[in-house]
Amino acid sequence: MNSYDAIILGAGPAGLTAALYLARFGAKFALVEKMTPGGLLLQIFEIENYPGLIMPKGYELADAMEEQLKEFTFDRYQTCVTALEHKDGKVTLQAGEEALETKTLIICAGLHYNKLGLPDEDRFTGRGVSYCALCDANFFKGRVVGLAGNGNQALEEAVHLAALVRELRLFMRTAAPQADRVLQKKLLALKNVVIHKEVAITALHGESELEAVSIRSLQSGETEKFAMSGLFVIEGMRPVSEFFPRELVLDADGFIVTDTEMRTNLPGVFAAGDIRSKLCRQIVTAAGDGATAANAAYSYLELADA
Amino acid sequence: MNSYDAIILGAGPAGLTAALYLARFGAKFALVEKMTPGGLLLQIFEIENYPGLIMPKGYELADAMEEQLKEFTFDRYQTCVTALEHKDGKVTLQAGEEALETKTLIICAGLHYNKLGLPDEDRFTGRGVSYCALCDANFFKGRVVGLAGNGNQALEEAVHLAALVRELRLFMRTAAPQADRVLQKKLLALKNVVIHKEVAITALHGESELEAVSIRSLQSGETEKFAMSGLFVIEGMRPVSEFFPRELVLDADGFIVTDTEMRTNLPGVFAAGDIRSKLCRQIVTAAGDGATAANAAYSYLELADA
Repeated sequence: MNSYDAIILGAGPAGLTAALYLARFGAKFALVEKMTPGGLLLQIFEIENYPGLIMPKGYELADAMEEQLKEFTFDRYQTCVTALEHKDGKVTLQAGEEALETKTLIICAGLHYNKLGLPDEDRFTGRGVSYCALCDANFFKGRVVGLAGNGNQALEEAVHLAALVRELRLFMRTAAPQADRVLQKKLLALKNVVIHKEVAITALHGESELEAVSIRSLQSGETEKFAMSGLFVIEGMRPVSEFFPRELVLDADGFIVTDTEMRTNLPGVFAAGDIRSKLCRQIVTAAGDGATAANAAYSYLELADA
Repeated sequence: MNSYDAIILGAGPAGLTAALYLARFGAKFALVEKMTPGGLLLQIFEIENYPGLIMPKGYELADAMEEQLKEFTFDRYQTCVTALEHKDGKVTLQAGEEALETKTLIICAGLHYNKLGLPDEDRFTGRGVSYCALCDANFFKGRVVGLAGNGNQALEEAVHLAALVRELRLFMRTAAPQADRVLQKKLLALKNVVIHKEVAITALHGESELEAVSIRSLQSGETEKFAMSGLFVIEGMRPVSEFFPRELVLDADGFIVTDTEMRTNLPGVFAAGDIRSKLCRQIVTAAGDGATAANAAYSYLELADA
């Protein structure tokens, strides 16, 4: 069984930054990732809001983060985690064929956005379709956009978007929003928002970028098509959580609760990036989390060794 | 009196990132900074551990962060804050000649490192002299370095450094460390650490980079000179805190306590970067804090307006 000071689960911005910091500390660690390193970065076309880098492509930022790790030696497992246990102050886990054990664990496994499930959705992702208004709203200043969703987050992002765009069409499957009254009131007061109730989005149209959206009334079955250059899908998200340690404290949506130093309720277990319970999920906050978590894990190791 | 949704105090990485996010939200805000924007970045020669940027100079990263703000309109005050009051859910402050008021305040004023006070200290800063082992230890792998300090943080960083460098000389003014026993024990067990007690550092030597350090015994008055390429000065730090709102909760060292969303105990007042009470003070954690604080401030404004 391979033994480590630390194992990082997930190689998005949080995991790659945690790796950079652990490597510079000289810790013996491993990075486990089933996909290509970069995480959600690889789904972003251009990045406008990563401090210090002017409009990199998503893959360019991922590549640069990888490049910084080149000079360091650590183990990588490109595989899934299929079992994980936290016991007697140690974590044991199964990464593909390998049984691993570690004194500290940093969970950076990220999240999945709930999708509409339409055929062209992946093709238009980053080319009009977005799952994060906080990330992408600014690309659509002064334009016509749509938003699919009816919950608190959807309405918050709708209010935020409406301040920037020319016109916003809000599509919801229900007859009324499932959101706080204060948000509903704000939304209704906005003059550039059109609300479509009891509708489903049935098709996305466009050549290389999104140009229009078709919807169908769930009551009458009638369809309509609206021209728009952006569609925000705010239908919730799920943490990548197949392998959480038992007894880990999660929030109501299943995301990991940490303190300001990224410590979870379990000694030696830390979390960083989108998988944390938090309000601001951004590349730079994920990277910041990763540095903080690595530092906290290393401090934990230093005290444990004493 | 000029009125804002948000005022950011300090234009280091935390403040510049908060500005980038507020600008993208379309908020009406001002940035107050008495010096050149960039903060402690401007004191860093090369940066090895900012994710996604390969070895930029400190000023280059500061310039890039400024460049990203160019397309946005907001007010800047290049001056000191001389008075500040938090009252009835609003902050009023005096920035030079200007009286300002704001619904939210994001404090990113940073910290000062305590220095040795030697004539050549500023000249060698970033050229051998460092105030942050977490930031710079990796530059001195396999080399001979010194560390000035005797507290918990000094001993922690000494243990951390000793694992990377060939030899570490620890200089303390006292007869014994003022640190936890567990750290003292760890330090004594390290074979490549030489401890000099009751000494003062009296001179720094070198051409363009630090080459040697002179010390004087506080008992005998005798002096000695040691060749070394790095000297870490870990003598504590102070928040830049002339203008904190009254009733703001601080930690024992005077740094601002926040929750994971950068909210302080005062409604509408947020803190980000080095001025926060936290363990990991890095450029990327400051930038992450800045994004999170801007997001939290904007959410606060949206709810307050409803």
